[in-house]
Amino acid sequence: MSDTLTLPYAATDARAPTKRIPVAVLGATGSVGQRFVQLLNGHPWFKLHEVVASERSAGKPYSEAADWRLDTMLPNDAAALPVKSLGAELQSHVIFSGLDSSVAGEAEDDYANRGCAVISNARNHRMDADVPLLIPELNADHVGVIERQQKRRGSRGYIVTNPNCSVVGLAMAIAPLERLYGIEQLHVTTMQAISGAGYQGVASYAILDNVIPYIGGGEEEKIEAEPRKILGRLENDRFVDAPFRICAQVNRVPTIDGHLMTISLGLRNRNFVNVEQVREAIDNFRGEPQNLRLPSAPRKPLHYVAGDDRPQPRLDRDREHGMSVSVGRLRPCPLLDLRMVALVHNTIRGAAGAAILNAELLEAKGLL
Amino acid sequence: MSDTLTLPYAATDARAPTKRIPVAVLGATGSVGQRFVQLLNGHPWFKLHEVVASERSAGKPYSEAADWRLDTMLPNDAAALPVKSLGAELQSHVIFSGLDSSVAGEAEDDYANRGCAVISNARNHRMDADVPLLIPELNADHVGVIERQQKRRGSRGYIVTNPNCSVVGLAMAIAPLERLYGIEQLHVTTMQAISGAGYQGVASYAILDNVIPYIGGGEEEKIEAEPRKILGRLENDRFVDAPFRICAQVNRVPTIDGHLMTISLGLRNRNFVNVEQVREAIDNFRGEPQNLRLPSAPRKPLHYVAGDDRPQPRLDRDREHGMSVSVGRLRPCPLLDLRMVALVHNTIRGAAGAAILNAELLEAKGLL
Amino acid sequence: MSDTLTLPYAATDARAPTKRIPVAVLGATGSVGQRFVQLLNGHPWFKLHEVVASERSAGKPYSEAADWRLDTMLPNDAAALPVKSLGAELQSHVIFSGLDSSVAGEAEDDYANRGCAVISNARNHRMDADVPLLIPELNADHVGVIERQQKRRGSRGYIVTNPNCSVVGLAMAIAPLERLYGIEQLHVTTMQAISGAGYQGVASYAILDNVIPYIGGGEEEKIEAEPRKILGRLENDRFVDAPFRICAQVNRVPTIDGHLMTISLGLRNRNFVNVEQVREAIDNFRGEPQNLRLPSAPRKPLHYVAGDDRPQPRLDRDREHGMSVSVGRLRPCPLLDLRMVALVHNTIRGAAGAAILNAELLEAKGLL
Amino acid sequence: MSDTLTLPYAATDARAPTKRIPVAVLGATGSVGQRFVQLLNGHPWFKLHEVVASERSAGKPYSEAADWRLDTMLPNDAAALPVKSLGAELQSHVIFSGLDSSVAGEAEDDYANRGCAVISNARNHRMDADVPLLIPELNADHVGVIERQQKRRGSRGYIVTNPNCSVVGLAMAIAPLERLYGIEQLHVTTMQAISGAGYQGVASYAILDNVIPYIGGGEEEKIEAEPRKILGRLENDRFVDAPFRICAQVNRVPTIDGHLMTISLGLRNRNFVNVEQVREAIDNFRGEPQNLRLPSAPRKPLHYVAGDDRPQPRLDRDREHGMSVSVGRLRPCPLLDLRMVALVHNTIRGAAGAAILNAELLEAKGLL
Repeated sequence: MSDTLTLPYAATDARAPTKRIPVAVLGATGSVGQRFVQLLNGHPWFKLHEVVASERSAGKPYSEAADWRLDTMLPNDAAALPVKSLGAELQSHVIFSGLDSSVAGEAEDDYANRGCAVISNARNHRMDADVPLLIPELNADHVGVIERQQKRRGSRGYIVTNPNCSVVGLAMAIAPLERLYGIEQLHVTTMQAISGAGYQGVASYAILDNVIPYIGGGEEEKIEAEPRKILGRLENDRFVDAPFRICAQVNRVPTIDGHLMTISLGLRNRNFVNVEQVREAIDNFRGEPQNLRLPSAPRKPLHYVAGDDRPQPRLDRDREHGMSVSVGRLRPCPLLDLRMVALVHNTIRGAAGAAILNAELLEAKGLL
Repeated sequence: MSDTLTLPYAATDARAPTKRIPVAVLGATGSVGQRFVQLLNGHPWFKLHEVVASERSAGKPYSEAADWRLDTMLPNDAAALPVKSLGAELQSHVIFSGLDSSVAGEAEDDYANRGCAVISNARNHRMDADVPLLIPELNADHVGVIERQQKRRGSRGYIVTNPNCSVVGLAMAIAPLERLYGIEQLHVTTMQAISGAGYQGVASYAILDNVIPYIGGGEEEKIEAEPRKILGRLENDRFVDAPFRICAQVNRVPTIDGHLMTISLGLRNRNFVNVEQVREAIDNFRGEPQNLRLPSAPRKPLHYVAGDDRPQPRLDRDREHGMSVSVGRLRPCPLLDLRMVALVHNTIRGAAGAAILNAELLEAKGLL
Repeated sequence: MSDTLTLPYAATDARAPTKRIPVAVLGATGSVGQRFVQLLNGHPWFKLHEVVASERSAGKPYSEAADWRLDTMLPNDAAALPVKSLGAELQSHVIFSGLDSSVAGEAEDDYANRGCAVISNARNHRMDADVPLLIPELNADHVGVIERQQKRRGSRGYIVTNPNCSVVGLAMAIAPLERLYGIEQLHVTTMQAISGAGYQGVASYAILDNVIPYIGGGEEEKIEAEPRKILGRLENDRFVDAPFRICAQVNRVPTIDGHLMTISLGLRNRNFVNVEQVREAIDNFRGEPQNLRLPSAPRKPLHYVAGDDRPQPRLDRDREHGMSVSVGRLRPCPLLDLRMVALVHNTIRGAAGAAILNAELLEAKGLL
Repeated sequence: MSDTLTLPYAATDARAPTKRIPVAVLGATGSVGQRFVQLLNGHPWFKLHEVVASERSAGKPYSEAADWRLDTMLPNDAAALPVKSLGAELQSHVIFSGLDSSVAGEAEDDYANRGCAVISNARNHRMDADVPLLIPELNADHVGVIERQQKRRGSRGYIVTNPNCSVVGLAMAIAPLERLYGIEQLHVTTMQAISGAGYQGVASYAILDNVIPYIGGGEEEKIEAEPRKILGRLENDRFVDAPFRICAQVNRVPTIDGHLMTISLGLRNRNFVNVEQVREAIDNFRGEPQNLRLPSAPRKPLHYVAGDDRPQPRLDRDREHGMSVSVGRLRPCPLLDLRMVALVHNTIRGAAGAAILNAELLEAKGLL
């Protein structure tokens, strides 16, 4: 519900910084940027100190530069911040990037080379050989590669990334299965919300009473590649992809938030698959953010939702403030081994919330 | 566009009846029944003579009993027909059934036993051993089993059925591939329109800004079973299923008409798959209704729609008055052989229009 | 956001009860009933003790009887309550009624005659001569008529009501103008959300890509009558209607929650109308719930929302947890004096939340 | 229904040109331009000869320059036309303008000064003192001012315009009342479809599950001004506005096509208002296009639709191929005299179809 100026961050006993760390947001006026501003409001560890956008917005107060579209109020502190221009010198050492991929590549490298910790939502550096593609519940140890990246840059700065919005849902949903049985292959069809394309991304004339079986920017390729890095191993500072293969087919549907997907998968060790056990493994799944009690960590990263017709975007996307992935309809597959449905809040767990959780992990590990 | 009281049935040189055959519609007030009434208006071979509904509507003029919801006007001739009660003696020998499956089983058997040709859209008798499950472009020869059915009934009456609304789209889309290479297995995820559930079937509170990953009534099971019968052979009056297997995952989405589906399939003979050749085979596909120039037959049963983001329900569902299936995005699959997207107008080609085409085939074959 | 088991009720120094008052909800499985259950969870003054529904649900646990549709989790305490049958003896003295109007009339009278305080959302008794039609910010003094009602019943029990969901928005939006200048007449056109009709009330086939210029149950008549009682005076235990007249035209639109309305009004004292002054009067409006700091009272009952294109249902309906009415676009009218746009969350401020605020007022006044 | 390459233009005995007149369309790639191309396909009097768009599209074939979005197929003849650049010399004497108002003003003047008959849908010249603002059923005689305009230009060229999309619906709906009783004042609240803003005009993120109580470009002012010119008289080559006044409040709603509006109006001669008589006057209303049997003329310009809940955009917008306005819910108003609901297909009768009907009138009057 709206008007809650402060999000209810859970009490935490993680090693909290002694005072709130000043942070900057790149691309602060866009849809991901606005989510950063919303979620950082009242954050116990980070304090929004600088907002950065394109030349066109530079110099204006944020309240004027941003056409605020979220259903909570624009936080007062943020409203008054003057927008800085992309590339400008920043006072913050910690930078969240909600930049569009058309500019993110260079700009993020630039700030990292200057010594900043860049926590990025953009796709540009996700597959770089020394950049972690993090989901802290799954591969917190991948931060180990950062040192190698710092060496390459000759700087204490670095980039870490979070996955594509659909990939977060997919990788988290299958992680318990990967651990239990090993995954061999999977088919996934996504039904993605319009907010994934930004505020102006999908015209209403294009999507009302319609489904569009395509999403630009290499969406299917990202979904087929990123989970293999995420669920892979870091060995001797090198990423080794998980061995499964993916077929992704993507669709845009007329929902506002929440990417839903059907999954059918084959397992490497299929001898003793027990559906009930898998359901429990999903619902009981926990990771580093839960162990560390990070402020943005959901109590449960995965919720197994009972009910033949769940999860559903409108009813389930906001679980644990949008930070949990919902899974349902787990059942045998007539062709492979199991099939199921997964749901992720694409602009929270799938974007800005993911990046903030990454930053919390970095701080808890002493890397900020 | 609306207000066209007569649908533009194509000129045909098929063996047309010397005068229009009087027909009855069972379940005439429901959503499929209304489509029957709409499509039969101005039909060159059939004349709507009787409308049948539940006891509650019996005796009322059709205009009063039916809460007409289509965007063309209720035809005047139909408006004046008095509604008869299900089970009543009918003057028509040819009967279209848009009955709900809760009552269709017995009622259809009853009329068939009395000597009527029952052309049904209901699911009840689709898988019966001596009932054809027809898509005239694919398996017109399956009408050969009718004689066996008549013998069982000891009557000249019989039942023929058309498939589930999604199955029509799926079976037609894959038929050219089955013929070229043989299909081994396929994964399909559907995104189905609300009209598939009838006028009251999906509450707006349930589906606005939402997707429901479930459809009741055994939808997935039907999609996994029916295509095997349709694409199978009739040998010595016995149906032999096509050998492929299917994994279906179904979803309800907020579109009004048009079931869209993503398909990934493996072929039996995969050595020389040529994507361009398959596209042409789809676009050039023709069948018995085209050869016979049946009045409801689309010029092309399948349209291959170019464009990365096609077919789309709102833009493509009405091709050839809703009687064509649209296919697009044919491309290699990283796991199996090919993947593609298909679209069918669920209440026309997927229901009432399918049944009328079946009746035209039966008439052309001298079976009415 | 979901999953917040406890709503953030504001700290209050109103005369709080020494312990939480047990309450019952009539019609607890319906859409208004579910909102009662949701909003009562964690309420500082009231404790949900009994849930009542139709015979069909009686005996089942609430979790089973209610098809829970809200986007927060069903509260655990409520889930376990056994459903009682309408008419059953209740232990609670305070009863919230979310009953359908088809049964509310008698059932509410019955419980009031037995001595209960019935706080009703149903329309049946709203216009009764000794039943308050309350919006605590506007006419808290109308509770003065309760004593007369108790005498009529020969019981300490009584009924109080809240207005129709659109009327709450309209009456609150115009109240500052009524006080400043007196209202003479007004035209209102509403665009009402589907949730106003209950979960099954509006079929998706009826409303997708559509607007329905009609709402049953005498909606327009209610909007034309109720505001006159609400903004009228209680004189010598008799209600005297406010003297203005209303023309209402209602529409159902495909939004989930939030009734939006355009208003054009003429004033009795139109000499010194100052648009800027009216905006401030709206934004500064306060009433008894704010003075008493009732737990459900919004900080500001009315928000004047700047911006040419506001208020909007999706962006503004949740202000102050749905308890505030938003007003915007105040400007001169070419025919009458002023025009403006108002928005109310129809199932919170317009229904269950309104009733709970009424109960809080009654408790604060020593009437429970 | 789609795929009808030729629209079913009615047979006509109006003075048809001996051969089809070549025409050009300005702004041919936009949403109004595409409707022009669609509606001109198969037109019995006009033949699409040239398509004109911005510099960016110039030289490309139309099929490539236009991102075709209508649910009929792009006509083959049009597909092959090379796009010309705005301002280029044209071979056609008759020009339809679907230009955006940002460029229409000068460009249309320019072509008119060069001797062309410019039939424009843009707002720029609608209120010019010597430019007719035509609805042929209402004010066909306003073409009398063209001669004066030609003199001003020193050219046989001229501009005629059709009204704003909402105004067409409003002016036609009230015309029978203006003739019967004279209108004094009216309140109108519109609920306008997204197609009115062009394909990219309304972002889905802005309008899904929402209503926007505002439309830019002076929409309310146009609705308050244009009907007075349309229903006014042409006296001595000067327009005299009809004497009534209008209060308009506009909203954007999530419908695809069809502007719905509630109207409340006061009459000058209110003594003998007879609701039944008014209904008949609406349904029996005819005008010059019906007398002349123009090809695009609907059989009935106004349909009075019975049923408490009609007209509705999805069910009624396509009456007579979108060229008829639907009216319903005529009933007394508690404040003024009558209230009612009207619906117009905004991109057909409210835009491209209106302009084509204007051109047909001009041709029938010997003015092309």
